[in-house]
Amino acid sequence: MDGVIKVGFFGCGNVGGGVYRLMNGFAKEIAHRTGLRFEVKKVLVRDVNKKRDVELPQEVLTSNVNDLLEDEEISIILEFLGGEEPAYSYLLAALQHGKTVVTANKVAFALHWHELQKAAKESGAGLYYEAAVCGAIPIIHTIEDSLQANRIDRLYGIVNGTTNYILTRMSKEGEEYADVLKDAQRLGLAEPDPASDVEGLDAAYKLSILASLAFHGRVPFENVYVEGITGVQAEDIRCGQELGYTLKLLAIAKREGLKVETRVHPTFIRDDHPMANINGAFNAVYLNGHACGEMMFMGRGAGDLPTASAIVSDLIRAASAPKHCYPTFENDLYPTVSLENNTDWRCSFYVRMLAQDQPGVLSSVAKTFADHNVSIAAMQQKGEVKNGRVTLVFITHAAYEKEMQAAVKEITPDVATVESLLRVEED
Amino acid sequence: MDGVIKVGFFGCGNVGGGVYRLMNGFAKEIAHRTGLRFEVKKVLVRDVNKKRDVELPQEVLTSNVNDLLEDEEISIILEFLGGEEPAYSYLLAALQHGKTVVTANKVAFALHWHELQKAAKESGAGLYYEAAVCGAIPIIHTIEDSLQANRIDRLYGIVNGTTNYILTRMSKEGEEYADVLKDAQRLGLAEPDPASDVEGLDAAYKLSILASLAFHGRVPFENVYVEGITGVQAEDIRCGQELGYTLKLLAIAKREGLKVETRVHPTFIRDDHPMANINGAFNAVYLNGHACGEMMFMGRGAGDLPTASAIVSDLIRAASAPKHCYPTFENDLYPTVSLENNTDWRCSFYVRMLAQDQPGVLSSVAKTFADHNVSIAAMQQKGEVKNGRVTLVFITHAAYEKEMQAAVKEITPDVATVESLLRVEED
Repeated sequence: MDGVIKVGFFGCGNVGGGVYRLMNGFAKEIAHRTGLRFEVKKVLVRDVNKKRDVELPQEVLTSNVNDLLEDEEISIILEFLGGEEPAYSYLLAALQHGKTVVTANKVAFALHWHELQKAAKESGAGLYYEAAVCGAIPIIHTIEDSLQANRIDRLYGIVNGTTNYILTRMSKEGEEYADVLKDAQRLGLAEPDPASDVEGLDAAYKLSILASLAFHGRVPFENVYVEGITGVQAEDIRCGQELGYTLKLLAIAKREGLKVETRVHPTFIRDDHPMANINGAFNAVYLNGHACGEMMFMGRGAGDLPTASAIVSDLIRAASAPKHCYPTFENDLYPTVSLENNTDWRCSFYVRMLAQDQPGVLSSVAKTFADHNVSIAAMQQKGEVKNGRVTLVFITHAAYEKEMQAAVKEITPDVATVESLLRVEED
Repeated sequence: MDGVIKVGFFGCGNVGGGVYRLMNGFAKEIAHRTGLRFEVKKVLVRDVNKKRDVELPQEVLTSNVNDLLEDEEISIILEFLGGEEPAYSYLLAALQHGKTVVTANKVAFALHWHELQKAAKESGAGLYYEAAVCGAIPIIHTIEDSLQANRIDRLYGIVNGTTNYILTRMSKEGEEYADVLKDAQRLGLAEPDPASDVEGLDAAYKLSILASLAFHGRVPFENVYVEGITGVQAEDIRCGQELGYTLKLLAIAKREGLKVETRVHPTFIRDDHPMANINGAFNAVYLNGHACGEMMFMGRGAGDLPTASAIVSDLIRAASAPKHCYPTFENDLYPTVSLENNTDWRCSFYVRMLAQDQPGVLSSVAKTFADHNVSIAAMQQKGEVKNGRVTLVFITHAAYEKEMQAAVKEITPDVATVESLLRVEED
């Protein structure tokens, strides 16, 4: 056929199969809307003889990456290998060969953005990565393009479906973390090795990408503070609910003046915050820009077709673009923007402790807090006295993380033992 | 200055002032990110001597549209006049003069899209209208571009802030429509003449634009069924709440096979639907695509800076585009897509009636419904018997609008009088 754009796939698992089906099933509409026709010419796989769900012609399969890199007809590569290597090396080689890349690979991208963008610029190839963050939600393009007249000062993301599913179940059914995780694994909603999700790494990769775009300053993955949900207890979710809060694994990015902070951790937000209603495997990003004000974008963050929606839209964009664009960062414009590791920040806190049931205990705790500039916004006693001890739950006003940590360390067992310390975002 | 892009304004009220402030206040960032510099060369106003909030140099003001049309240095026109005329004639003339247009004008656009796009294509000018629908929310570009690999089959919009504010207040405080409207007018949240908002016309203009893009088939404004909120009673909101529903003025567009339906009316949705939590003056669009699945976009639908966020992003896009794109409709591809006036559709219904308190009444009502293929999903008696009559509230399963209307007409006063009939979307 004349004018057909030849593309190659790196990998063809679940997402690759979805992309192949969407490209074929929607080819007529794509051609009518955009005038573009695509053909998948070669697909790099580990084992060309493996049985696959998707009906690929046998002759397009190859296990040799050079079959794609050296095929001059292939102008665009779609990558679904995932993980850092060999994906990164292959992507870099593709860009160096002048091939435009569309990728869903958050890890390779978050870790090697600089090198990939440099290679793309040098060869004039395009680099498209909408699907790397939040699946079907077009958050990358929205920040880069539709909100480009904004100075974004904060961004909250629920960017990992597995942890949001687990926390939603814990919140609605009062179950403990370990039980829900097992169930999620049984249902295929959590990986057999769930570490990257439940320890917050997956969210941190995505936050590094989102924060870099939102603040127009590269925020390396290493600069994101990460804490997962493995230590979350059902009792804290319940105590928070009684105070009007919902617990979410939030990816938080803030820029105040020239200081940037990025952190991923379990966070209490108010029940009436729009993000509190993002449940199950859904993802969402909430942000505030100086012109647009508060916005929220919600959708499916994973799955073959939702991810394919972002990839095929990127593919059409890449194939239609008269020239490719790359984000510009402001680190040059404002070189004083701090992108150092952030280990301190201000937020409110939730503290649960088992306190001695005797006079003076509350005043002792309050004094320890006050010594570290932590002031108490609310306090509740939970349940009955047991073995001479009683559960107290505090919500503080905004305080510095380091001061709060220091205060908690100073509370001695003869007064109380701190059972949980969780962060609260009141915005 | 070299390489400065000269733009003209049609109008300079609230939104125009916001755009001027954003263009100036953010000029350094825009230049760094995109390499573009803009200068507002001429501003068309009715009275050049009127005192304005925004500090425009006196020499840029003119009351003669030809001063802009015939200025060959001006390549882009931003339009803030609003309404059909003279805005439409001016926009058309600008496009015919080869000037790219960025507009926030939903009325001129919904009514004359075809002519505007034709003029733009003929002269090669660009036509950008992100701000015409939902203020800061980039819903136009998202549907056109980021979700272009999708067949969208339904879309729900809360696209009018005034009515959403009124319904939110009625829902939260139990107040009646007329009282909240008065208050909203006092607070500047409703116009002195609120007809276009409260009667649903504003929402219908926007729905005509959104449905055309979502379904890739022009849906004229005249084809949108419109019913506003002027008849909404606090009692129905309360009865709906007791059954787990929230009342919203929804702009609804559905495409099933080749049939398109578009309607604006007060609609009950389930409390746990993401749209049920869009409160106050916020706007939101919820949609479902065959690949992306369910998505929701929330943000500020009005106001000077939120609207300016969309306009200035469009301006940057227009100035950077190597060539301008126009949406392609599928009416040609699938000429059988029905875009006729839709006067019938299927949905669930909420019916409140005052029924005689005597045996056989419920069976009589149920029989009348059944005769018209309406089946009852839930029924509740509300409150005590008064003057021998009792309030009954029904929720039906999905039924045809025309059959439901016919059933209601057949219920005679000796059985019951129907006080309210509202539509319910269960999706």
